[in-house]
This record gives sequence, C-alpha cells and structure tokens, in this order.
Amino acid sequence: MLRFMTAGESHGKCLTGILEGLPAGLVVDKDFIDMQLQRRQVGYGRGARMKIEKDEIDITAGVRFGRTLGSPICFVIHNRDWQNWEKIMSSSPVVEGADKRSVTRPRPGHVDLPGALKYHTYDARDVLERASARETAARVSGGAFCQLFLRSFGIRVGSHVIAIGSERVSDEFAALDTQRVLEIDPLSPVRCADPAAEERMKSLIDGAKQAGDTLGGVVEAVACSVPPGLGTHAQWDRRFDGRLAQAMMSIPAAKGVEIGEGIEGASRPGSAVHDEIYYDHENHRFYRNTNRAGGIEAGITNGSDIRVRIYMKPIPTLRKALMSVDLRTKEAFKAQFERSDTCVVPAAAVIAEAMLAIVLSEAFLEKFGGDTVEETRANLSGYLKGLCEY
Amino acid sequence: MLRFMTAGESHGKCLTGILEGLPAGLVVDKDFIDMQLQRRQVGYGRGARMKIEKDEIDITAGVRFGRTLGSPICFVIHNRDWQNWEKIMSSSPVVEGADKRSVTRPRPGHVDLPGALKYHTYDARDVLERASARETAARVSGGAFCQLFLRSFGIRVGSHVIAIGSERVSDEFAALDTQRVLEIDPLSPVRCADPAAEERMKSLIDGAKQAGDTLGGVVEAVACSVPPGLGTHAQWDRRFDGRLAQAMMSIPAAKGVEIGEGIEGASRPGSAVHDEIYYDHENHRFYRNTNRAGGIEAGITNGSDIRVRIYMKPIPTLRKALMSVDLRTKEAFKAQFERSDTCVVPAAAVIAEAMLAIVLSEAFLEKFGGDTVEETRANLSGYLKGLCEY
Amino acid sequence: MLRFMTAGESHGKCLTGILEGLPAGLVVDKDFIDMQLQRRQVGYGRGARMKIEKDEIDITAGVRFGRTLGSPICFVIHNRDWQNWEKIMSSSPVVEGADKRSVTRPRPGHVDLPGALKYHTYDARDVLERASARETAARVSGGAFCQLFLRSFGIRVGSHVIAIGSERVSDEFAALDTQRVLEIDPLSPVRCADPAAEERMKSLIDGAKQAGDTLGGVVEAVACSVPPGLGTHAQWDRRFDGRLAQAMMSIPAAKGVEIGEGIEGASRPGSAVHDEIYYDHENHRFYRNTNRAGGIEAGITNGSDIRVRIYMKPIPTLRKALMSVDLRTKEAFKAQFERSDTCVVPAAAVIAEAMLAIVLSEAFLEKFGGDTVEETRANLSGYLKGLCEY
Amino acid sequence: MLRFMTAGESHGKCLTGILEGLPAGLVVDKDFIDMQLQRRQVGYGRGARMKIEKDEIDITAGVRFGRTLGSPICFVIHNRDWQNWEKIMSSSPVVEGADKRSVTRPRPGHVDLPGALKYHTYDARDVLERASARETAARVSGGAFCQLFLRSFGIRVGSHVIAIGSERVSDEFAALDTQRVLEIDPLSPVRCADPAAEERMKSLIDGAKQAGDTLGGVVEAVACSVPPGLGTHAQWDRRFDGRLAQAMMSIPAAKGVEIGEGIEGASRPGSAVHDEIYYDHENHRFYRNTNRAGGIEAGITNGSDIRVRIYMKPIPTLRKALMSVDLRTKEAFKAQFERSDTCVVPAAAVIAEAMLAIVLSEAFLEKFGGDTVEETRANLSGYLKGLCEY
Repeated sequence: MLRFMTAGESHGKCLTGILEGLPAGLVVDKDFIDMQLQRRQVGYGRGARMKIEKDEIDITAGVRFGRTLGSPICFVIHNRDWQNWEKIMSSSPVVEGADKRSVTRPRPGHVDLPGALKYHTYDARDVLERASARETAARVSGGAFCQLFLRSFGIRVGSHVIAIGSERVSDEFAALDTQRVLEIDPLSPVRCADPAAEERMKSLIDGAKQAGDTLGGVVEAVACSVPPGLGTHAQWDRRFDGRLAQAMMSIPAAKGVEIGEGIEGASRPGSAVHDEIYYDHENHRFYRNTNRAGGIEAGITNGSDIRVRIYMKPIPTLRKALMSVDLRTKEAFKAQFERSDTCVVPAAAVIAEAMLAIVLSEAFLEKFGGDTVEETRANLSGYLKGLCEY
Repeated sequence: MLRFMTAGESHGKCLTGILEGLPAGLVVDKDFIDMQLQRRQVGYGRGARMKIEKDEIDITAGVRFGRTLGSPICFVIHNRDWQNWEKIMSSSPVVEGADKRSVTRPRPGHVDLPGALKYHTYDARDVLERASARETAARVSGGAFCQLFLRSFGIRVGSHVIAIGSERVSDEFAALDTQRVLEIDPLSPVRCADPAAEERMKSLIDGAKQAGDTLGGVVEAVACSVPPGLGTHAQWDRRFDGRLAQAMMSIPAAKGVEIGEGIEGASRPGSAVHDEIYYDHENHRFYRNTNRAGGIEAGITNGSDIRVRIYMKPIPTLRKALMSVDLRTKEAFKAQFERSDTCVVPAAAVIAEAMLAIVLSEAFLEKFGGDTVEETRANLSGYLKGLCEY
Repeated sequence: MLRFMTAGESHGKCLTGILEGLPAGLVVDKDFIDMQLQRRQVGYGRGARMKIEKDEIDITAGVRFGRTLGSPICFVIHNRDWQNWEKIMSSSPVVEGADKRSVTRPRPGHVDLPGALKYHTYDARDVLERASARETAARVSGGAFCQLFLRSFGIRVGSHVIAIGSERVSDEFAALDTQRVLEIDPLSPVRCADPAAEERMKSLIDGAKQAGDTLGGVVEAVACSVPPGLGTHAQWDRRFDGRLAQAMMSIPAAKGVEIGEGIEGASRPGSAVHDEIYYDHENHRFYRNTNRAGGIEAGITNGSDIRVRIYMKPIPTLRKALMSVDLRTKEAFKAQFERSDTCVVPAAAVIAEAMLAIVLSEAFLEKFGGDTVEETRANLSGYLKGLCEY
Repeated sequence: MLRFMTAGESHGKCLTGILEGLPAGLVVDKDFIDMQLQRRQVGYGRGARMKIEKDEIDITAGVRFGRTLGSPICFVIHNRDWQNWEKIMSSSPVVEGADKRSVTRPRPGHVDLPGALKYHTYDARDVLERASARETAARVSGGAFCQLFLRSFGIRVGSHVIAIGSERVSDEFAALDTQRVLEIDPLSPVRCADPAAEERMKSLIDGAKQAGDTLGGVVEAVACSVPPGLGTHAQWDRRFDGRLAQAMMSIPAAKGVEIGEGIEGASRPGSAVHDEIYYDHENHRFYRNTNRAGGIEAGITNGSDIRVRIYMKPIPTLRKALMSVDLRTKEAFKAQFERSDTCVVPAAAVIAEAMLAIVLSEAFLEKFGGDTVEETRANLSGYLKGLCEY
C-alpha cells in the first residue's frame, strides 16, 4: 500500500514529504531526484523566484547506504530564502508590530477567497502559502522515487507540451510516439517536441509577459512498458482511470483531464475509436496498432502506453488588473500583482510525470505486492511469464 | 465518513449497494430513487434490454419507517430476467454440459481482453459481467440517496447533454444556466436543452444505428446552492476537484473530465479565465458574474454552481466489424455483436448526477459532520451565518 | 486491497455483506460457509431465536460456477422470521397505529442509551437492531470466504474457549497446542477442550440461567502455517498486532484483547517472556520452542502460530433487574428482559475465527498481491523459497 | 478527517511527523508539546540515551503565529547525537570500509528476525532502527497537538502506572478516580499514584537492572469530559473501541489492551458488570455511578470517562543471555546486550495518552466536523445543547 503526503508552506522553512510503501532494496539515485526538481524549475515563462530556490532534496528517513529500507521515506526541500521569511511565516506567536505581509486582497482564480472563507481568516496568506504551486516540488520528489521504482522494472514516464495558450503543436506532434517523448531534453525550457510550435509558444509567452497576462496550456504525460492488468473494473473507486484522473486534476491549475484521445473520441463513431486487437504469435502477446484508449480499458491498463493529458488554466497571479474585493473592508479594487511567472505549463508537465509515477506505483504494488524490489520483480516476472503462456 | 460500494454482475441475480455514513433522520423518498433508475433507462439510442429491466430499488437495511437510521443503507436491484440467466451465471459449481455462454472473442475498447489477462480467464464473461454499465444502476441508486440528503439542504444536482457524436448544442446552450438545466424534463430521452441540436442528435443516432455503429458524447453535471468551503487545498488527495474527477472518470466509457470551462480556458489568457470577485453588500456575500471555474478554486468549492463535463467514448459493443483475436485459439476474427444500444450518453448524464451527488455528500459530511440530518443542518446553518458575518 | 462491509438490522429483511479484493479462481465451498454459520448458532447457553434462524448464505455476486471472479463478493443471510417483523422494521413510512415495538427503556451495557443520544431517537430499536450480535452472522460469512482463501495456502484458523464466567480451563488447556485446537469438534456446544472445565462451565451457565443472569468469558483464536512477514513495523497503523486488536475488539461485547501471553507476560521479567530463537539446519528455517509472543513481534508475523485472546463481557440483556431510565419520561425503572441467551462465549469464538481470517487475508494480499489464487500462490512460493535460501 | 504518519529511524537525522486534519485557529503551545516529550524521556529505569536526546519539537509547517492554519502540520525532532551516527545511518551509498555497525544477531522479542526475513536483509539494523521505540517521540508530539485540540473543548487525557512486573498498585489505586490521575505530577518518574507500590516498583526495577533483566507492566490511559456519541456501532471498523484497541496495541511492546474493567468483567456475571443508568433531573443528563465499561458501550462513547489499559511486555534488549541465531552464519549464540533501559512502562503511559488523544480527535472531528476550532466548538455546543433538551 503506497501512501504519500506532503506538508509545507510556500515560504515556510521547508517542504516535507513522507512516502510510505516502496519496497526495500531500491537503489536511490539522488541526482536523478534532484534533476527532476531542477526540471520543475526551468521553463520558459517562469519568474525570478526559480533562481532563488535551486531545489535539492534532503533525505531524512527510509534510505540507508543508497537503498530504501522499506520504512517510510522522508525528504525535505529547504527554502533557501527562509531567512527573509522567518518572521513572516513564524510558527511562534506573533511579536508586536511584526511584518505579517497580510494579504487581504484575494486573487480571482486562486485559493484566496474560498480558502479565507473556509478557514475563516482575513489574511489570505494563511491559505495561499499552502495552495501555492511550490508544494509540487514535494510531489516531484515523491514522484521521482516512484520513477526510480518503476524504472527498475523498465517502466518509464515522460511528458511533453501540447499547447500553450492558443498555440498548439501540429497533429503529428500531438500524437507523438512515446519513445520520442522520452527523448525530449529533460531540461528543455518549453518541453515541446515541435520546433515550429515551440517558437510560436515562446513568442506568445513573451507577448503575454509584456501584457501582464498569463497563459495556460495542455501537457501530456506518458508511460511505456506498463504491464496489462493494473487497476480494476471491479469497483468504481479502484479503477485506474479514475485514480489517474484524481491525481492529475489535483495538480494546481489543472481543470481538465483526458485519457488517450478521450475528448476527440467523444465526437467520433465507435468504429473509429476503439483499438483493434491483434496477436503477435512470435512473441506470444496481444497488441494494438492504435492507442486511442491511452492504455486503459474499463479501468485496467491494457499493455499499451499510458497517455493522459492535463488542461491547465493560466495562473491567477497576473499584472493585468482583475476586479476583486478586500476581505476586511469589502471594498472593490482592481487586483494587480507584481509576481512574474507568466506560464508554468512546462513545469506542469514535470509534475504530471510525478503524479503518473505515483499512481502507477500504487497500482503496481497492489497487484504485485512485495517487500523488497527483488520480491516484487519475481512476482512481476511470474505474471508476465503467465501472460506469454496465456 | 461516507463509503459506497456496489456488487453484482450484469446478468447476476441482483445488484447490491451499501452506502454508509448518511446521518439518521433523512426522509427516504423511494419514488424519487426509482425515478432516477427510470431516468437511467430511458434515452434515445438505448436497446431492448432496458424494457426488460424496469429497475426498482428494494431497500433491505438502514431505513426504517421512511427514514434513515444512521446504519449502513443496503439496497438491491433485482434482475428481472434472472430466470433466463440462472444457469449461465450460477454461483454453484457448473453442471456438466451447461450452457456457459462463454465469450472468447474480446471486444476492442471493453474490459474483455485486459480483464481476461488480469484475472486469467478464457471466458471474458467472467469479467464483462461486472464491467457492464448495468452496474451504474447501483450507483444511480446510491447517488439518489445522496441527492435526497443534499436536497434537504437546498442543494440540487442536474445534468444535460452537450454533444452526441459530432453534434453539439449551440454556444448558448453549452453555457446553460443551472436553473434551466434543473428544469429539463427528468425523463427527456436526449436530455438536451437545445431543441435544434436535439433533432440533429436523434438523426445522428438513427444513422449510427443503421450503420451498426455507436456514438459517444459530452454531458455536463451541475449542482446549485453548494456552500463555499467543501474540499481543501491542503493535501493533494483531499482536493474536491481531484475527487470529483475520479468519480466522473470512473463512469464506464468516460475518457475525459472538464471542470467549468477548463478545456477552452487552457487556450485563453488569464485575464479572460478567472472569475472576478464582487460583493453584495445587501446580502453580505461575495459573488461572481462568471463561473468559468465551475465552482471550484484551488480544490475548494467557491459558492458558485458546480459544473463538470464528462467526455464519453462510444460504447464498444457494435455491429460494425472490428478486428480482434480469439482468447483461446489466438485466431484473428472480425468482431460483430448484435446488442443494440447505439448511444448511452443521456444515461451517462444521469450517472454523472449520481457521482456528483456522492462526492458532494462526502465532502459535505467531512466539513459539517453530524449524526442526524438536524445536527448536520444546524452545523451548516452556523457556518453560513458565520459567512454572512465575515 | 481487501475491503469488507456489512449491512442489515437484526430483525430486518436480511443481512448483507460485500467482500472485495479476494483474487479470482478461489473455489467457494458453500457448505463450509454454511457450516460456519451453523457453528455460530449452536452453543450452550443460547436462547430460542437460534432455532428460528438456521442461517444459510445466499451468494448474489462475485462467484460463478463455484469460483470467485475477482469482483466484489456479495452475500445475503435472510431473516427467516421476516414475516413477523415486516411491519415493525418496514422501510416504508409508518402506517398510522402501527406496532412499532418501540424500545424506550435502555439496557445498561448495550447501545441503547449512547446510540439513542448519538442518533437522537427515542426509540432505541432504531439503534439496537444494528448493534445486535446478529450482525456477526455476516462477519462469519465474510470470514468463511477468507478462511477458504487462507486454506488454499495451508493456513488454518481455529478457536477454543478458555473461560466462561469464573470457570477456566486448567493451565494445560490454556496453552493448548494449535493442532489440538483445530481438532475440536466444529459444532461443540462449549468449544472447550478441557472436559472437566466444560462440565463446570455448563453448570455455571445453568445456574446463571436460573438466576436470570448472563456470563462472559475468554476465547482464543489461533492460526497455523502463517508465513513470517505479514504486517509491518514501519507505520503505527500498518502493524499486524494493531489491526488484529481492532478486529477483535470490534466483536460485540469484547472488552479486552491479548496477543500470545500478553497479560501474564506483563508481570514477568524479560528473560522469561521472549521466545528464544533456534535454527533448523535440515529444513533451513528459524524456529522457537515457545510462543509467548503469539506469533507477532514488532507488528510482524514471525512464523509461529498466531494466538489471540478476547475477553467478552456478559451480554447486557438479562432478566435480573438493573436500574435504568426511560428515554422519554426520564423515570427510573428496573430493567428486565425476557430474551434468553445466557452465554454467547462459544459463538464469540467462531466470530473471532472470522475476524482473524479477515485480518490475515488482508495482510496476506498486501504482501503477496495477485489477481488470481494461482498468481498469489506463485508469489507466496517464491517468497517461501527465498526464506529457505536466506 | 485526521491523518497521522511518522517517519524516521532511531539514529537517523531526525524523526518527522505529519498530522493532517486539525482545524485552523488552534493555539499551539509549544511548551506543552515539549513537556510531553520530556515526560516520555524521564522514567525510573531508563538508560543513558535519554540524557543525550533532550527532545524538542521543531514545527516546520501548518502553524503560523502560534496558531494552526488547517494545512498539514509537520514537525521534526532532531537527533542530537547525529554527528556520531551520520556515517552509520547515511542515506548516501556506503563508502568502502565504512563502519556499518551491522547487527546480525537478532534479539528474541524484537523486530530483528521477522523484519530481516520480511525485508530480506542480513543487517537487522535496517529494520530495528525504525522499530525502535524512539519513533514514539513523534507519536507523543502528534498526540500533544491532539491534546491541545481536545483541551480547547475541555477534554483532558492522562495516565498512570498500574503495575510494573509483578508489583501492582492496591485495588484502591487501580480504580483511581480520573481527576486524581490527571493530578499526578507530569514528570513523576514512575507515574504511579500509590506511594507504597511506587517504592516496591523502584526496588523491583533496581533488582532487575542488577540482574540484567527487564520489566514490563500495565498502564492505564484516561480521558475525561468526552461527549457521548463518538464512534459508532454501525460498522465493525468504525467502532471506537476497535480503533482505540488498534492505536494502543500499536505501541511497541504492547501485547494486551483492556477497556474499562474488561478482563475482570469477563469472569463476573452480567448483573455485576453493566453500569446502571440514572438521570440527573437538575442538569438534564444521564449518568452512571460506576464505569466498568470504560466509557464505551457498543463502540460508542457513553459520556463516562474513557479508561483503557495496556499490557506491556518487558523490552527485548536485555543483558541476561537469551538463545538466538546469527543471521549470516546460522550459528547459535547467547544474546547479550549492553543497552541499559530496564523498564519503559512509565514512558508507555505517556505514549498511551498520545494515542488516546489521536483516536479521540479523529472520532471527534468525524462527528463534529469544522475547519476552524470555533466552527467545531459551535457544532459541539449545538450537539450538547440538544443532549440537554433530549
């Protein structure tokens, strides 16, 4: 049973993650994890804070001598700018005259208003600090552990950008082969495989930045070499598609999730949607020539690559003024913010990889069990052998 | 804590649901529940079985004298055709020479192949019986209890059809006011508010039926009078948007989920996406003039109506031949099926209502607690009063 | 992941259980399950109702042709006396002048008062119907499925009675070898292996019956051939001992749980408590000559037999008058009840077997995974082979 | 919904806890929390390490300006001796020739052998570091937050020692009034209210220390002012007694759990076990003159004080030699350890308080909901008012 929880405010001392349930004996490549954190931070359209952060993981539990112990993994990502926030985010009772940097002017589209109402605070900082996408650094770290786990069985995850704002890749690149997705430069600033679209996206971002506006977009996360049989149709909340959708929709700013060609498929006739089934007599396996289903049928992985798209709204912190209302005075004002992220879509792709890896690992462990990577591997092998003999 | 599980095979003796956690004292209107079951069964494009079923709920636990007890609610939907299936779906060891109605020819797009591999069976009936959308009758029943619960606080859910295949409502009807959605005839065969589109949809369904093909589409579920503050940004798996996405994607044939105008919003600039905030000084409440967010910001309901769209693929049982492979012989064949549902999109809308009601009730109880409806109501009232005084 | 929920009121139409997560392909021996139900009903000291019930399971989902499908198993135990209760326990709105058999006089020690307060009812029947030990028939059925699952790997569970009221077996029988526990006549009316104690217990029960009083006692549940490694020390709520304690304490009337010789061990020095470790070079396995730990160390099964004791209070429905207060009038009264169970301790032993089987199966599936019994078996074999080579 | 997870190895860099679900606005008294940590460390019979540790909590998330935010609380307890263990417990790949302080000689009664088998390691340090009772410092911290939460509603928890080894308090002190339990000096080294027994216990500990042996014992945790209605009889795994038993049995070295007078009650007739019910017309409340049920009937709190006893085995690290087997060589040896804790029973009492506070808070939030302490308080008040008017 895999469990994953994070804690930490955006400008707090640190982010913390506890990841429980990975088997013992997994080789932990810290550089790989830090690389994922770095990937989250690069991206055309990010603002200045990314330079301050330079995130790095500090593993405080669950790993010894470079291998997991089977006990809960705990990791910390320190806030390198903590000394500037120590008083503003202090856990101690507030000192008289302290600079609280209170936020009483809620941004439309953000946690500020619903969070302030739910938790009854007049300082939206009390909620926005947690809702900030900074929290996803912890998810990326947890996901990186899961990626290492999956990689030890040959399963790899990747991602690419399909659209930023109104700019979209050409159809050829929208249906990009999984292998080519995996080959995209890990640190590519746009994570877009279509060079022409990439240029248009950059221009669009530049323009939006100039205009004080922000941009959303569409990312696709993929996984290859996933065995058939993860998840189950047997109960609504155990279906792999549902759990994947939850994980993806939980990414800050995600407003839509599509598995395979789910959205376009809704407008096509059935005969042009379902992936025909073939058999490879040499390798003793069923296969498909298409993958419109995105690797999932009836809530179960079917052996094709997993493909899932996430539709991201533009971030709600923008210079261009939007109408809002002061929490205390109830006076109307025009919201204006100086923070400079214009587009975080490439980062969202990296986060989507992490969430995909987490959900896959959870379903993988449910099916194959095991308290050591070797035990899990043996169980997987036996199952795969059975499939060949099916 | 709300828990909901179903059991039952499509042609088994009955479907069963256990719904646990609704407070005591809820008035159970059985007619309302049966009406939801009926709504699931009507629908332009449904086949002959719907006529056999005439589903009706039999409440076997958790309700006494027309009110919930607080104990687990159990209900059963009997299979009216059971006598014809008793031998085929018998739980007893098989008798020699029994008609098993084995299914060895998997339908692309259905559970047949991945399910047969996962559970290692050569009779896809062993898995397809459970994966059948018939199971959603139990969900609709569970959802109907939750609707009754929500209605006792003035919260109502509804749904309408946005598209069937390539036919889509006009923009005016895509952004249909929630109240008008709630006013659609409960038994409308297409559940589409746009009369012109409805006609086109019917024609399209007729054509697909003729061609032996099937159609998917897009439905939207809505909820009004939802208090702000359900769900939380505080942890990835407690966000209301993620849980809603899971519930919706778990509907058989769902391949995409969109909250508010999430998909279109991904291509627009931030200044045209976020819902500006206003304050109604008379009624002491914040409000918006737009609802592109679909009532959810940062994983928390914001007091606007909930709006969620589900993208349904065409059902995978179609007369038009698709290539497949026999499970035993591994021989290729052209799949052809006689079963006659052409389009189940209007039914999916009813199921989406049910899932929305379940997820809302769960989050509602998490926030407001209570072991009787009166206790929950008092807690809600206190909170709403606090919002007025905020 | 194993999930098990029950529903149903004591005099309702039926009890229902949904058991989800058992792998496919398990041979379902209905006679074995019915035998467990029968075992729950016999017992020296039971009253008249047991004769009415003659419980039998009706499997409505998850089993086909005598084997599990991997889908949720659903079963029903009908109330054979339903026609006499149909009006009293009707789910329909109450008819004017109906005989509600309201209970306004709460029994000390039962759910009557705390349940009436929690769910705000003046008719304790609204809560006592669910709290009745009749619900355990559903647990025994669910546990019987789990027993069949465990038996397919050679794991067996059993139980015996250690004490009834003040009468206790001699020390020799308190530390009864697991094999001898398993050999006790399944339908033994006292389930006590010590013939002399059994006689004393019967006399004690006779005397209590005469006096209008009731008796509790102590039962022990055991399991043999449990592989080492179930449960984990890694997180407080994943420990096998804690989960076992929850399951056992959840048995109605259970007020104490003891693993191995836990209670006596608390008064002994460490050198006389811990089970020394030896190695069997021939069979390549560690072993112990004692089992004071009851087969669990640090929340993990250690390969010794599981032994757990449950301390049952006397049932709270007794003829001998106890002081209580009317729910409506608040008048004091002397509680007196005619229902005639004097002692249900032997039945509790059967229920304890069921709960032990459920908890073991859950931990077993967590470690070994598998969607078919064969897959689980292969995973188990691989692990056991690894232990031999350790 | 309350969730609580810990991470950390005994000699690792730090212990970490994430506690999620406490409402916003709770005043966090760090001194109170640190005091609980200190209480865990004192205790007659503890060894030298306690002096090194001097535990103190470092709150890294979820608290701002001395109040909870509603976001996950994260806290860290640093290992003050980390510099001496940095290499032995390093998360980095091991350096050649490193001092691993491998443990190949498993202690009977500890995680060493079952953990090594489960996680397939030949260095028991890989498992014993997590299984060490040091982890309970994180539980005590999490429990202290919950105590602060409960205290804000007037609910208090406490504990006392009933027995150490063969020495037991006199009957008068075994049935000690809850108020007197709460008045015991928080830092009392034995936590025993009976001065005569305390002296005998000290002597017994001294003797055991001399003999190189260890001692277990019995502790009782109590809670007062608990409202009736927490937990429910409605499903086996939602009962308060079961959840309490799990939490208590999960304490390292716990082998038995008793609610109220559960063990003695098993040998008494029903007429001498159940707590008679009375009504206080002045204060409009039901009450009892006895509390043999320990405040729980049918899995629901009944308004009486909660009383639960935990039976602790002696710790398994003892100087007195026990037989064991080397993990690598399989050679028999006589286990001998130098670590000097003789008795940790008084510390276990503090841990039991923490677990009781956690379980109570979970059930409390389930019933009363609320996102701020004020909201929860209003919900509680409304319920209590309803009880007065019942």
